[in-house]
Amino acid sequence: MPKTGQEPSPTKDLVTTYLSDVKSRVDACILDFLPIAHEHPDVHQLYQMMLDYPRRTAKGLRPALCLLICEAFGGNPERAVNTAAALELLQNWLLIHDDIEDGSELRRGEPCLHQKHGIPMAINVGDALHCKMWEMLLQNTEILGHPLAFRILSEFIQLSNQVVEGQHIELSWVSNNQWNLDEDDYLTMCVQKTAWYTCITPCRVGAIIGGASDADIEVFVELGKNLGVAFQIQDDVLNLIGDVGRYGKEIAGDISEGKRTLVLIHLFNACTPIEAQHVIDIMARPREEKTEAEIESVLHLMQKYNSIEYAQRRSKALLQEVAGQFRNNFAHLPEGRAKHLFLSLIHFFVEREY
Amino acid sequence: MPKTGQEPSPTKDLVTTYLSDVKSRVDACILDFLPIAHEHPDVHQLYQMMLDYPRRTAKGLRPALCLLICEAFGGNPERAVNTAAALELLQNWLLIHDDIEDGSELRRGEPCLHQKHGIPMAINVGDALHCKMWEMLLQNTEILGHPLAFRILSEFIQLSNQVVEGQHIELSWVSNNQWNLDEDDYLTMCVQKTAWYTCITPCRVGAIIGGASDADIEVFVELGKNLGVAFQIQDDVLNLIGDVGRYGKEIAGDISEGKRTLVLIHLFNACTPIEAQHVIDIMARPREEKTEAEIESVLHLMQKYNSIEYAQRRSKALLQEVAGQFRNNFAHLPEGRAKHLFLSLIHFFVEREY
Repeated sequence: MPKTGQEPSPTKDLVTTYLSDVKSRVDACILDFLPIAHEHPDVHQLYQMMLDYPRRTAKGLRPALCLLICEAFGGNPERAVNTAAALELLQNWLLIHDDIEDGSELRRGEPCLHQKHGIPMAINVGDALHCKMWEMLLQNTEILGHPLAFRILSEFIQLSNQVVEGQHIELSWVSNNQWNLDEDDYLTMCVQKTAWYTCITPCRVGAIIGGASDADIEVFVELGKNLGVAFQIQDDVLNLIGDVGRYGKEIAGDISEGKRTLVLIHLFNACTPIEAQHVIDIMARPREEKTEAEIESVLHLMQKYNSIEYAQRRSKALLQEVAGQFRNNFAHLPEGRAKHLFLSLIHFFVEREY
Repeated sequence: MPKTGQEPSPTKDLVTTYLSDVKSRVDACILDFLPIAHEHPDVHQLYQMMLDYPRRTAKGLRPALCLLICEAFGGNPERAVNTAAALELLQNWLLIHDDIEDGSELRRGEPCLHQKHGIPMAINVGDALHCKMWEMLLQNTEILGHPLAFRILSEFIQLSNQVVEGQHIELSWVSNNQWNLDEDDYLTMCVQKTAWYTCITPCRVGAIIGGASDADIEVFVELGKNLGVAFQIQDDVLNLIGDVGRYGKEIAGDISEGKRTLVLIHLFNACTPIEAQHVIDIMARPREEKTEAEIESVLHLMQKYNSIEYAQRRSKALLQEVAGQFRNNFAHLPEGRAKHLFLSLIHFFVEREY
């Protein structure tokens, strides 16, 4: 039962059913593709580690976006499943490296890979899955032919360049102990680090396989930016007020890790200079030097200044913009299951509780 | 002047001239390809970090193998420069991650990237260069056309799968504190971790672009295994007795890092059980807990039992095998500069002092 006490709506049911259907098709594709056994015991162990994150529970939002957009443009989503699976592999290698870089502890309800096997092995497992992602994309030559497979590869190149830049910006803030950030700084980072791989590219590759025009494909840059930022803001909110059992990461882990979020930036703009200094003093320390009471005190200030509500409002406003962009730009597409589900799915991006 | 006191031979001069020529063409290609400036200061910094390893002095052996084999098969090496540059990018991202995984300190005469910028940023810079490698390989569609470009991509996929497995085997030995290894264990690891990306794939992609037959391309698997192992053994030897100024890594760094090498395996087979335990006691400790005297004592035992000489003999024997394989299998290729230089180059693999 959702924490808000609302009854599950029929639309929400449709979305969760669709998500679980997509996830099982994509999972089957990935588990069929990744190696599972090797006679050399160490290589066998590597294969098991490569399967670890892909086997953990995940929502599969990126594959769902890809398949729905493909269908909305009249394409056969079956032809996009391989590409959707590559999006999941991307997510998995990114998360393995990201968890090391952020010093995270939990991922999808279990200890992070580097917590289980150490940083050296976890880096290498991430690299192994990274390579497998390109291998999977090369398989598109058989499914889509050379020119289209090449075009999808180019899209993944573009997104990779974005995501490493976004990641570097965020790591620089930590490394430089930088806290004087405004919303634009956050948005720039968030678009590059999250929106490209979570929304822009999933929609673009779905549209490309669906046979969309270049002009239609371009719409997904702006639309995906807004959706990606809305998604990330909701992720930041859930990190603070979510249910660990459903969310799968430690609650307020972003405070432990010293993450710069829209909630935090709002707080800095709203609170007194003394309070801001108090927050920075806590946030800037390594996680092992933070007490629970200190983390609580930051959360308390976020509540006092309604920073979490502010972020939720921003996220919902972005969602409205995305829905408008979608309706305005794609009025020429037939009304049907895919368009309807897409609009429901983007609401789930912002209203989800996990 | 070489430490052995030999005069530089005319053949050696030819090789070093060729290497420096190839290196400058490949470097020009890489520096032209990698981004150098960005208005966002953090992204700009990322670009500088991505240029760090590629700008350090390196021999460029892999590109040289690729271009020479292309030429030996009658191909135009200009068409292979882009692929040769991708081999250098591969080497660079692998080294960045490898240096983190091994806890190394020096690379090509300078502190390792993670020593300069911390592990989180260095992981991400490695990922950024990894993505750039695939981007560079996609450029082959314009140079070689779709089918050949995809074939080269498949070769890189194959090698990537090998290299992460070899890396995992080596990391497992460290993680499991495993020392009871025989030569076959070392050879398996070494073929996967080193030979594929250093010799097999560089030769194969050169041959493919040069228009070689499938049968000829397959020869490079066995030939490249031998050459790669010979190369790695010489690398292990130089690590123990090289000149830091020329070799660019700390001398006896492999003992500090606890690396399993052919030299070490020979020592374990030759020395007394008490000496073996003494060596393991030192090797197994973290590098910061090893004294110089302890490292010296391991080196001393390696000298006492002629383990370094043994490794050098093995390396030279492998080289003779490679030369024979090359002559026997490729008698049908015209005698000319490329064949001659290839045979000189493989001698350099084993006789080099840096």
